[in-house]
Amino acid sequence: MRMGEGVEWGLHCCVTLGWLEDRAPVSIRRLAAWFDLPQEYLKKRLQALARAGILTSAPGVRGGWSLARPPERITVMEVVTALEGPLEPFQCTEIRRRGEGGRDAGGEFDQPCGISSMMRRAELAWRRELAGHTIADLMERAPAGARRTRRNYDRLVD
Amino acid sequence: MRMGEGVEWGLHCCVTLGWLEDRAPVSIRRLAAWFDLPQEYLKKRLQALARAGILTSAPGVRGGWSLARPPERITVMEVVTALEGPLEPFQCTEIRRRGEGGRDAGGEFDQPCGISSMMRRAELAWRRELAGHTIADLMERAPAGARRTRRNYDRLVD
Repeated sequence: MRMGEGVEWGLHCCVTLGWLEDRAPVSIRRLAAWFDLPQEYLKKRLQALARAGILTSAPGVRGGWSLARPPERITVMEVVTALEGPLEPFQCTEIRRRGEGGRDAGGEFDQPCGISSMMRRAELAWRRELAGHTIADLMERAPAGARRTRRNYDRLVD
Repeated sequence: MRMGEGVEWGLHCCVTLGWLEDRAPVSIRRLAAWFDLPQEYLKKRLQALARAGILTSAPGVRGGWSLARPPERITVMEVVTALEGPLEPFQCTEIRRRGEGGRDAGGEFDQPCGISSMMRRAELAWRRELAGHTIADLMERAPAGARRTRRNYDRLVD
C-alpha cells in the first residue's frame, strides 16, 4: 500500500515555494527542472494543490506558481489529502453481516463494527500527526535547505 | 490509497477463530461460507497469516484453521503487516538531491530529509495504535458477536 509519488513532489514544491516566497511565482518549467521531474505530470499535481486552495498560479511569461496562503496555514495533512484523497486506507465492506456467520444478529449490527472502529482510530492518530505540522514547520527545520534553495535559484535567475 | 480487502477478511477471521477456539480447527470451506468470501482468495490470505505465525492449519478431513498463538499475543499490527507488508505508505525517492535544486548541497544531504522524517513519524503514530491492540481486545469488545458466532457455528455442526 503506497502513496503516489506526487506526495513527495507536492510537499517539496510547497516547501520550496515557501523558501522562494519573495522570488515567486516560479514557472512550472523551473520547478520541474528543480527536482528533475516530468513537467506535465508535475503540473497535474500542482493543479490538484491549486484546487485545494494551497497553491495559486499566475498566467503569462512571468507567471508561475506560488503558495496561496502563508505556509503557517498549510498543514501537511491538507497537501496529502489534496493529492491522495481521504486517508482512510482500511476498507470496511461489512463482511460481518454476510454469509452464515451474520445470521440472526438482532440489533448487533446497528453498532459500528469494532474492527472498523479500531482501524479508523489508528488512522486518526496518523492524520492527527499530519494535521499537526505545517509547511512552515518543514521550512524551519531545514535552514540549510533554505539557504541552498535561494542560492541555487538566484544563480538561475542571473 | 487503499489496503487490500484481505485486511478486513484476515482480522475478522482471526477474531472468529478466537471466539471458536474450542471448536477449532475450522475448515476453509466453512470460514469462506461464514463471511460469503471466495474460498481460494481467502485461503491465500490465511496462508500469509500462517507464514507470519499468526494462524496454523491442520490437514485432513477434520482439519482446518486455528490461531497459532493466544489472541492476547497477536496484535492488529501483525495481522495488517502480514497481509500488506510494512506500513510505510509515503515514498521518499530523495528528489531533493536531484535537478538544479540539489546542487552544491555540501553535507546537507547527510541528514535525513525533514519531509520524509515527519511522514515516517506520522506513520509511526498509526502503527503504534495498531500495535497497541490485540485480537483479544477486539474479541472482548464484541460480546454479542461472540455469542452470535458460537450459536451460529453450533447450528452448522449439528
